[in-house]
This record gives sequence, structure tokens and C-alpha cells, in this order.
Amino acid sequence: MKSKKIKVFAPATVSNVGPGFDLMGFAIHGIGDEIELSISKNNFIQIKKIIGDNNRLPYDTNKNTATVSILSLFKSHQIKVGLDIIIRKKMGIGSGLGSSSASAVAGVFAVDKLLGLNLPKQELLSHALAGELIASKSIHADNIAPCLYGGFILIRSYNPIDIVQIDFPKNLFCSILYPEIEIKTSEARKILDKKVDRSVAISQAGNASALIVGLIKKDFQLISRSMEDFIAEPKRAVLIPCYNEVRNAALNSGALNCNISGSGPSMFSFSTSEKDALRIVSAMKTAAFKKGIKSKTFVSMINDDGPSVIK
Amino acid sequence: MKSKKIKVFAPATVSNVGPGFDLMGFAIHGIGDEIELSISKNNFIQIKKIIGDNNRLPYDTNKNTATVSILSLFKSHQIKVGLDIIIRKKMGIGSGLGSSSASAVAGVFAVDKLLGLNLPKQELLSHALAGELIASKSIHADNIAPCLYGGFILIRSYNPIDIVQIDFPKNLFCSILYPEIEIKTSEARKILDKKVDRSVAISQAGNASALIVGLIKKDFQLISRSMEDFIAEPKRAVLIPCYNEVRNAALNSGALNCNISGSGPSMFSFSTSEKDALRIVSAMKTAAFKKGIKSKTFVSMINDDGPSVIK
Repeated sequence: MKSKKIKVFAPATVSNVGPGFDLMGFAIHGIGDEIELSISKNNFIQIKKIIGDNNRLPYDTNKNTATVSILSLFKSHQIKVGLDIIIRKKMGIGSGLGSSSASAVAGVFAVDKLLGLNLPKQELLSHALAGELIASKSIHADNIAPCLYGGFILIRSYNPIDIVQIDFPKNLFCSILYPEIEIKTSEARKILDKKVDRSVAISQAGNASALIVGLIKKDFQLISRSMEDFIAEPKRAVLIPCYNEVRNAALNSGALNCNISGSGPSMFSFSTSEKDALRIVSAMKTAAFKKGIKSKTFVSMINDDGPSVIK
Repeated sequence: MKSKKIKVFAPATVSNVGPGFDLMGFAIHGIGDEIELSISKNNFIQIKKIIGDNNRLPYDTNKNTATVSILSLFKSHQIKVGLDIIIRKKMGIGSGLGSSSASAVAGVFAVDKLLGLNLPKQELLSHALAGELIASKSIHADNIAPCLYGGFILIRSYNPIDIVQIDFPKNLFCSILYPEIEIKTSEARKILDKKVDRSVAISQAGNASALIVGLIKKDFQLISRSMEDFIAEPKRAVLIPCYNEVRNAALNSGALNCNISGSGPSMFSFSTSEKDALRIVSAMKTAAFKKGIKSKTFVSMINDDGPSVIK
């Protein structure tokens, strides 16, 4: 018998990951979206409540990332089921930590489990991407894919979509600083150059390839050396008033490197122990504060699970 | 006691490797350069004989790749030893298979062994690059590094130079077609655009990263999907009159993919057995011949040894 109600969690994600701009991302623990679905007697999908969004997310099911994803899945499989939905944002909106992706993935994952569809992840991905498109105005899978698959993801190609799961060292810890300023993904994309020097493209491919080697071979020094983005980060750094200070604080505290998460404003650093990660995140927070910017911090290993059903 | 004479072999190499343009290369077996050094009573370095070059290589020690490399090493270590040199080209010049790199590496490797210097490979690399600069007018390590280190190499960065050795499947076979036409590296570089679309840079980084994953994880299908170069090959293909025909013949014969080696005219295909590699190279040769182009063919596993002393 199918259950009438389900509650799921989909994690926040760090995308871009230095030279992995538009190509890489990983899931983290602790923050993300909770979605509760109940089958209703109505013939339609309804968002009953959104909690923790400071009234910023739309109740219109054609505009909310979670429901757009669900509607895409329903349309594709000609499903007509009434649903009441409660969305609990357990992370900041516009943080650069994949807030809209967490909603989109939570939506399709919850429906798949509630209705016992057992659809392949590849298909859930395509519907979640439809939801993400509403939020970010362009198709980018570097949050959606790690949120849905868990772990560290390389998106080899968008057409056709080709997801590659990357091994990573289990003791890779991530220190995340979320400065309480807002950067819109679409704005952060506009400031990028449409063309780049060929030599820049080659350096970027070199670092991206080397980062992958570092992750798979657990070569932390190679990870450290590789984490320079030549395309997006030099442009976007100016959008984060405490970028240089936070980065220097992280590096001086022993971080392997320090980069922007997604299109910002969040920044993240890798290190090799929880103790280091806590020290680093504290130094990052202090550096931001000295520039007059309040922030939230998180420390997490890479989350290998992806979304999960909450009992 | 130091021996008075030495003979070494340095292998041919395939560089670029699809999306690894300017970043990747691997050594092969069977073809390359042989260099014989003898300590002479003179105070200078002298090329006594060059064999197999059709009189195309210079005897001037300031112009020959092998001796420029040796002179760079000598200058750096203030070595003053007279040398008589015999160079045997056991591969085509201007073939796109790293002919000048083989000379440069053979030169410094032979000197290191003859004089018992035991210099680190990183240092031999820098002197070999000085030799390569004479031949190709620009610093590119994607032939030099795999020739010197053996195996499959990623050059993460040129400044500073950062060489990453990549694991690869032992049953990866390479079918090589060397069409008897000539393309100058410097010419093949001139036709490339100085700028590329940002989306092209990202696709290139995605394929380069995925190729590395495929090699390390022995995922042949991923290798096959990843081997598309978006930057150089679309421009350079027109320089090889039989490019499309050879590529189609390789793919129709079961090659994982088929790309230009270096700046051409050689082309190569990967496959997973010697039997397949022989069938593929034969189909490639036939396709070139139908376009009126004579060619030489080689089949090799990736050469993990690099240069070697010949007893």
C-alpha cells in the first residue's frame, strides 16, 4: 500500500568548486530543504505553507521551483494526483549553496518515493532541472546533480546530460561562510565575459582535470594547487566585499584553498580534519565581521547520501 | 668510473589527446629517437652524424633540439665536457608524434646517464623544454613530459610547471596513422582563435576532466564519450585532407574515438585489444589511401618507461 504522506530532506550543495565552474559540485550535510507531501482529495497541487523563507518564495505552483519540478514529472508520466505541500527552508535563499536546487530535488524525490515510482535518477534529474530553470533562468546542473546523487559530481556534458560521480577523500572537510548579503545568480552570470582567451580555457581545463586527479588519488596538495578558477571567480570576487579578507584568513589558517560557492556570496574552504575546518571557518567569520559583514558558518564533510526520507 | 659512451632511446609521443589540447600526452613504443654520446678530447659539443632525417635537421648545435637541450643543462651546471653525438631518427619529422621532443629528451637523458649526474626529472624537463622551444617556437610540454616521464601525463600548469602522472588502463591500445604530408606546428597554431566562447572553455574542461576519470577508473565508455576537442581539432581538421575519412573508418571499426595527434598530420585511435587496434589501423590506412594519401601505421600500448639506455 502506498503511504499517504512523506517528508524528505534534500541537501545544500557547493557548486563550481574553483576550476569546476559550471561543471562540478558536491553535497553537504546539515542544511537544505525539507518538503512534506500529502495526497489530498483535490485534483491539484497546492503549496499549503512555506516556512523559513521570510516570505520570499512564491506559492504559485507554476513559479515555485519545487512544484515546477513535480509538475514536469507529472506531465511526463500523465500523473494526476492532488498534493498538499509544506516546504521548510533550512538554508538561506540566494546564498550560493543551491537553495533552489534543494527545493527542486526535494520535490521530485518526494513524489517518486510517495507514489512508489522508482524512476531512474537520470529522469528525476531532468524534471529537477525544469524547476531550477524557473529559479536561475538557465540550465545548470552543478547544484541539482550533486543534490540528487550525493557526493562529488562532474557534469561532463549538458547535451546530452552526462553525470560522472567522482571519488573523494573521506576526510575532506568543508568550511562554509555564508555572508548575509545577496547576489542573484542571473546578475553574477551577466558580469562574466562571453569569450575567454584560449590560454585561459587551457589553464582552466588543466586545473579542472588536476582537481579531479587530486580528489580520486587523495592528493591534498594537488587539490590545493588546482583550485584556481580563471573564468568566473576573478570577475565575481568584486561582488563579495569581504572576498580577499575571508580568503586570506582561510589560507592563513591552513585551508587547502578558498573559493566562492556557486555564484556567491558563500565561500568555502577545504581542509583535512574537522578540527582544522572549525578553526578555518572561525577565521573566515572573523575576517568578514571585521569588514562589517555578518555571516553564518557551517562545517561539513561531503555528503554522500543525497536526498533522504525523514522518518 | 664513468663510461665514455652511451646510447639511449627516447620514445615518440601523442599529445593533445582530444580535449587535453596543450595539456596531455602519452608515450608510445617502437618509434622515437636514438642518440649516441661519446666523450671526446675536444672542448666542445659536435654532432657527428644525423641518420634517418633526410638531411632535414641542423648540425649547428645552437639549432638542433638535442644539443640546445644539452647546452642548457651544461650552462646551468657549468659543465664543460666535449661530446661527439650521433642522432638516429627512428620516426618521421613533422609527424605530430613529438619528433623534436624525442630529440630533446634523448639529449638530456643521455648526458645525465653518461656523466652520472642523477638530476631530478623536473630539471631535465626544463632543459628539454629549452630545446623544444627552438623547434616549435613556443613552450609546450605535452610531448616533452610524457617522453621524459613515460606513461600518460597531465600538465596542470606551465607557470610553475606542474606535471601530474595519470594512471591508465594497461589494455588501452593506440592505433596511429602517420599520413605522409607535413604540417608545421607553428602553422597549425596560427590558425587557432586567440579567444574562445566561454561555453566552449567549459565544455573543454568538462571533457578533459572526464577523460582523466575514464583513464584512472578504466571506464572505456567514458573515455570514448570524452574524447572531443572543441578548441583545436575543429580548426586543424581541415589541414588533413583525409581527416573525416580516417576518423569515420576508425569509428566504424570499433575505435573508442579518433583524434589528431599533436598538431597533426598523424591521427590516433584508442581501443581495448591489440587485435582491435590492428584492425582499426588497417581501416584508417585504407581510408587515407582512398583519398590518395600514403601513410605509415603503428600500433602500441602506452609506454610507461620513458627514455631508456640501450645496452
